[in-house]
Amino acid sequence: MSAFKRKIRYGMVGGGQGAFIGAVHRMAAAMDGQLELVCGAFSSDPQRSLDSGAELFLKPERCYATYQEMMEKEAALPADERMEFVSIVTPNHVHFPAAKAALEAGFHVMSDKPATLDLAEAKALAQIVEKTGLLYGLTHNYTGYPMVKQARDMISAGALGTIRKVVVEYPQGWLATKLEDTGQKQAAWRSDPKKSGAAGAFGDIGSHAENLAEFISGLAIAELAADITTYVDGRLLDDDGNVLLRFEGGAKGVLHCSQISVGEENNLNIRVWGEKGGLEWHQNAPNTLLVKWSDKPAEVYRRGAGYLSPHAAAATRTPPGHPEGYLEAFANLYKNFANHIRAVVDGIDPDPVSMDYPQIADGVRGMAFIEAVVASSKANAAWTKLDL
Amino acid sequence: MSAFKRKIRYGMVGGGQGAFIGAVHRMAAAMDGQLELVCGAFSSDPQRSLDSGAELFLKPERCYATYQEMMEKEAALPADERMEFVSIVTPNHVHFPAAKAALEAGFHVMSDKPATLDLAEAKALAQIVEKTGLLYGLTHNYTGYPMVKQARDMISAGALGTIRKVVVEYPQGWLATKLEDTGQKQAAWRSDPKKSGAAGAFGDIGSHAENLAEFISGLAIAELAADITTYVDGRLLDDDGNVLLRFEGGAKGVLHCSQISVGEENNLNIRVWGEKGGLEWHQNAPNTLLVKWSDKPAEVYRRGAGYLSPHAAAATRTPPGHPEGYLEAFANLYKNFANHIRAVVDGIDPDPVSMDYPQIADGVRGMAFIEAVVASSKANAAWTKLDL
Amino acid sequence: MSAFKRKIRYGMVGGGQGAFIGAVHRMAAAMDGQLELVCGAFSSDPQRSLDSGAELFLKPERCYATYQEMMEKEAALPADERMEFVSIVTPNHVHFPAAKAALEAGFHVMSDKPATLDLAEAKALAQIVEKTGLLYGLTHNYTGYPMVKQARDMISAGALGTIRKVVVEYPQGWLATKLEDTGQKQAAWRSDPKKSGAAGAFGDIGSHAENLAEFISGLAIAELAADITTYVDGRLLDDDGNVLLRFEGGAKGVLHCSQISVGEENNLNIRVWGEKGGLEWHQNAPNTLLVKWSDKPAEVYRRGAGYLSPHAAAATRTPPGHPEGYLEAFANLYKNFANHIRAVVDGIDPDPVSMDYPQIADGVRGMAFIEAVVASSKANAAWTKLDL
Amino acid sequence: MSAFKRKIRYGMVGGGQGAFIGAVHRMAAAMDGQLELVCGAFSSDPQRSLDSGAELFLKPERCYATYQEMMEKEAALPADERMEFVSIVTPNHVHFPAAKAALEAGFHVMSDKPATLDLAEAKALAQIVEKTGLLYGLTHNYTGYPMVKQARDMISAGALGTIRKVVVEYPQGWLATKLEDTGQKQAAWRSDPKKSGAAGAFGDIGSHAENLAEFISGLAIAELAADITTYVDGRLLDDDGNVLLRFEGGAKGVLHCSQISVGEENNLNIRVWGEKGGLEWHQNAPNTLLVKWSDKPAEVYRRGAGYLSPHAAAATRTPPGHPEGYLEAFANLYKNFANHIRAVVDGIDPDPVSMDYPQIADGVRGMAFIEAVVASSKANAAWTKLDL
Repeated sequence: MSAFKRKIRYGMVGGGQGAFIGAVHRMAAAMDGQLELVCGAFSSDPQRSLDSGAELFLKPERCYATYQEMMEKEAALPADERMEFVSIVTPNHVHFPAAKAALEAGFHVMSDKPATLDLAEAKALAQIVEKTGLLYGLTHNYTGYPMVKQARDMISAGALGTIRKVVVEYPQGWLATKLEDTGQKQAAWRSDPKKSGAAGAFGDIGSHAENLAEFISGLAIAELAADITTYVDGRLLDDDGNVLLRFEGGAKGVLHCSQISVGEENNLNIRVWGEKGGLEWHQNAPNTLLVKWSDKPAEVYRRGAGYLSPHAAAATRTPPGHPEGYLEAFANLYKNFANHIRAVVDGIDPDPVSMDYPQIADGVRGMAFIEAVVASSKANAAWTKLDL
Repeated sequence: MSAFKRKIRYGMVGGGQGAFIGAVHRMAAAMDGQLELVCGAFSSDPQRSLDSGAELFLKPERCYATYQEMMEKEAALPADERMEFVSIVTPNHVHFPAAKAALEAGFHVMSDKPATLDLAEAKALAQIVEKTGLLYGLTHNYTGYPMVKQARDMISAGALGTIRKVVVEYPQGWLATKLEDTGQKQAAWRSDPKKSGAAGAFGDIGSHAENLAEFISGLAIAELAADITTYVDGRLLDDDGNVLLRFEGGAKGVLHCSQISVGEENNLNIRVWGEKGGLEWHQNAPNTLLVKWSDKPAEVYRRGAGYLSPHAAAATRTPPGHPEGYLEAFANLYKNFANHIRAVVDGIDPDPVSMDYPQIADGVRGMAFIEAVVASSKANAAWTKLDL
Repeated sequence: MSAFKRKIRYGMVGGGQGAFIGAVHRMAAAMDGQLELVCGAFSSDPQRSLDSGAELFLKPERCYATYQEMMEKEAALPADERMEFVSIVTPNHVHFPAAKAALEAGFHVMSDKPATLDLAEAKALAQIVEKTGLLYGLTHNYTGYPMVKQARDMISAGALGTIRKVVVEYPQGWLATKLEDTGQKQAAWRSDPKKSGAAGAFGDIGSHAENLAEFISGLAIAELAADITTYVDGRLLDDDGNVLLRFEGGAKGVLHCSQISVGEENNLNIRVWGEKGGLEWHQNAPNTLLVKWSDKPAEVYRRGAGYLSPHAAAATRTPPGHPEGYLEAFANLYKNFANHIRAVVDGIDPDPVSMDYPQIADGVRGMAFIEAVVASSKANAAWTKLDL
Repeated sequence: MSAFKRKIRYGMVGGGQGAFIGAVHRMAAAMDGQLELVCGAFSSDPQRSLDSGAELFLKPERCYATYQEMMEKEAALPADERMEFVSIVTPNHVHFPAAKAALEAGFHVMSDKPATLDLAEAKALAQIVEKTGLLYGLTHNYTGYPMVKQARDMISAGALGTIRKVVVEYPQGWLATKLEDTGQKQAAWRSDPKKSGAAGAFGDIGSHAENLAEFISGLAIAELAADITTYVDGRLLDDDGNVLLRFEGGAKGVLHCSQISVGEENNLNIRVWGEKGGLEWHQNAPNTLLVKWSDKPAEVYRRGAGYLSPHAAAATRTPPGHPEGYLEAFANLYKNFANHIRAVVDGIDPDPVSMDYPQIADGVRGMAFIEAVVASSKANAAWTKLDL
């Protein structure tokens, strides 16, 4: 337990009325009772920001018209009142400037992914993070699932032997028609290159798949050959794509993702095979990890069981049999981030468990992946290295 | 939205350090940002109550030594400070006196199940609830799952035709050995008749199964024939049992539950068949409802989809593909309860959705079920009616 | 390998045009190339018997008008021409007289289940089998599945410890309406007490569930309490029922089966729990056996794997990954029966594997079960012992 | 029914003692009672051929030392004795010469896949088939599954709209170590380029995946980019590979297969998405086809149900609930082939259902696919067209 007995205060950029991911961040942050939302710049429309804050029971004076105003005014508040970190839950193009402003104003940052609009921004942000010495978390939330941590920990402990192959996939179907023309807000900005960046599906979910594959396998993608497609007429960004992967050290794999796979929800799946065993995890049944062997029965690892790794054990709130899901996984990022902040405030070394959340290095890799995918595809799936 | 823009304040009885369900209630209450824990009598040990409250960032003066003290002192606080409802998360034997004290002090109550230690208490409690006119919620949390609501709503709309058969089961394995002798707190009170009541497994999980079966089918159990067993030597209460069910109106069914089914987590499952169709729901895959027909393919209903009933649609926080689980279902009870309180405070009729949480009538039925099971089994599985 | 290098010849009683189970027996018998159908009394209608035989490429002179004629004429053929055993695939009421006739004419018998129309016949048949010393197989085909054998073998080896609980169920939905009034042949005789016996669903599928439960658990049902129902108006026999089970030695359980569970195919499932572990098997995914433990991950046993018991290993034809199903399981009974006959012809002791098929003792137990169910239900689910 | 009332006679090339696929062909051919094995050249070792035939109850004079001898001597037999078609179940390098010999001797051919050792042979064989006018079947057996036919028929009827994406995969794990060095016969020839051809995994299972993808989608692969690998040191052929696909008309996809994916059996899976819906089929649960829609629940299509297409309905032997598997699917190829031969013998137009089995055109495409994969991979995954 931290030496100080109070909730940590945070503010939010984005996430006003009608947004999706802002509410997710707030529920994730609220779940464990460690964090308190104290202010926000919820919308680029000042009235909407005010109205959004009112629904969240915030005082009007802490509902800001812009993130710039929020950074300035919060910084001017007494230390025991002002926010301690900022959650950035805007469309992609605001991630970098908002994070930069927050860090430079002295606030830790928890940002939605991808880290920035392009790779250059990500590299710049990494320098800012390093320079300020502040904490930066990135909500590649799937790594918050306990069975994902278990998979990573088994592989890093050598249980599967040298890894040979990774297949990761993330099919969705919600953009199978031109939803962005109907006023659907989520679809609109995601298909707008100015707000989403160089990639559509790959910026939104392909980078999750990349992050998950590298997290679990412990391997870095070295080069890739990508064939990405825009199936829906008139759409400005990719809505589907298939990628051959080559990892450092010789493993290979496949990554494919889609937003036009009708009937799919968030079908994020990963399979990894090593010389001695294999494993698979499915986001739609996240409490289970199937581990496979050559000479004995496959094993069904389950969240909450007594045999899990310390990281996996710490990433759950209830005994086996109480299904945990997306919000709990998301909350695990916030929980670790909060504990990390507590250690910083307490001036002690953080528990390794509390440092187990995606950080700026993941953000840079993600942006390098996205740009490599786009470049490879433009070159007719030529092998392209990640520019790191 | 409610006319008043603040969180609703609540206090907790039980749920101190080392407890399980108290933390569940707190996470469920916190998730939607509508409720604020302001006080508690977390333990019968005053110091433990204080320490528990400190971990929850409560002020020492609002960490009470007893629930009686809490009712008295909170009632004496100004209206805009004092708690507005009480969460009771103690072992069963405290449910009734704590609820009675809270209601009589003017506080709404959200209680863990079963409602009371025995049926007589439950009937008495029902009278107190009626007399005070206050709200009483009972955390038969499985009815909070959106696909459970969908099942109920499809059946009540006649989609399956007249219901013929219900099979409900709740096997667990955690008490396959004499865990209560090892100091495990959860096992200890659950196997102690003074704290748990006349039944062990049936008090703990059998009543969940009963509640779920009646909730989904819309049918009331009329009589039952039960064969319950204590498999573990020296245990004082049942740890397993099988029950034949007859419902009002002619449907029949089976209910079985167990705490000695090695390897089972919370394997609560229900299947219902009517003249025109059938459905099944599994708590370990709670985002899916399988609906079966005689002359066309079975259908896979999914949480968050656009075709769900209003109650099911309201009971979810994220689009399809973001698995929701136990805590979200639990939170749905608190969300509806909170909205119901807001309507009461606003002096308006509550939205029917906000009234969709288990109440005292469910509690009385649950206790009648438990007593009928015990009585039937003592009479060698003689048919026994519920005493209502 | 047997010393003689030829197929074993068999004849068939029943199974003419329009029948279901006769074709199943023929496919099962043909699959392994060990058996040759040489004659039949396929129908009580002589022309239909002839036509049916023609479709099976039999000579007209070996398509008989009655089973009596078949027994007589085949017995008169030279030893190297005449059939060596008889497959009985008629409605239930013909099982006993045809088996009796075959045995008394010197032919081994493979009979569809249940063994006879009532328990008295079954006991009489057991005496005839014993007296003649001939082989009698009963197609409780589900015991032919390799993973069912694996389950039995693990339990008999003590892997799960002392068995405590058995839950077996067999819901079907095909008789949810009065199909027998539409001319559907399978429905017609099964719902006719003169042809089906004292029970409908329990004669057809309940006895399969009973047989499977006893086979896998190694335990004998001692007494039961049954509540059986006829849901469809005007139907003469039960189409659903729920049964509490007590086994010799103290284990308990539940058996329920149904033909009115709309949307269910042949959803035969069994779960068994012992002091140390549990297992479950589902007929709709028959190549898998899930084995569960208290302190380590559940294990997924798979047909064809190298770690299976000798009986399970012998009951399969292909390596893992080539799904085997109902016909292969059925064929396993014929394969073992054929090998048993070869041992008899060779005059050697049969391999224990070849004796692993249901025999007359299973038939007697099955009839005792059916009669106990009917008697118990008539007595309002009074506990009733099996009359053995 | 055919006008002639006898079984069709066939001979076998390969499939002697110790072989795997020969027994599969024999069981598949035997299952429906339409075919009779009358002769064979089971092994290149004459004594082994004789011994193998004896186990199959064949006369010694019809167990030949070579397939050449078999063609010659069978052709010289009276028309009502000699075989009518030849099953070729040898390693790949014998497929072409044996098929050529059979066709030129006037016999229809059913061959195991891939059709030949290389593409040139396949094209030559296509000319021989055309010239002789005889029937040629190729056991791409997965297309024999009823739910695979249902998938194809739904797509060809436009149920899913224009197809956009196909993902097909076939991971196995049995060659994760150098099994070919242990004397394991199946591994030995498959990893020998002289017997297997230019590809290992892709010749054995990759071509199945290609065939299935084209069969179900109704689309022809136009070009591909392949990255294939030999993971096991010293192995002479690929044991894994990942392929980007582009189909005629603009659909795209991914194909990956593996023999080093530890713990995988025959995990052949396919998913197809069109503009209006998607579907998926898994060989390890072959009786189910999941069909997905954007605006209504996914549907679970089941083998044997009343709503299936004529081809799917004809490809099954039992009602729903009786799992059918690999052998039944394989048998469907033989059943259709047999019915096609009957039509030829009867001199009538064959029923379209009976023509629904893979033929030489599939064989040519398969070989073109294999060669394209190898060529592309040698060119570092350069896009490569199928040479047709």
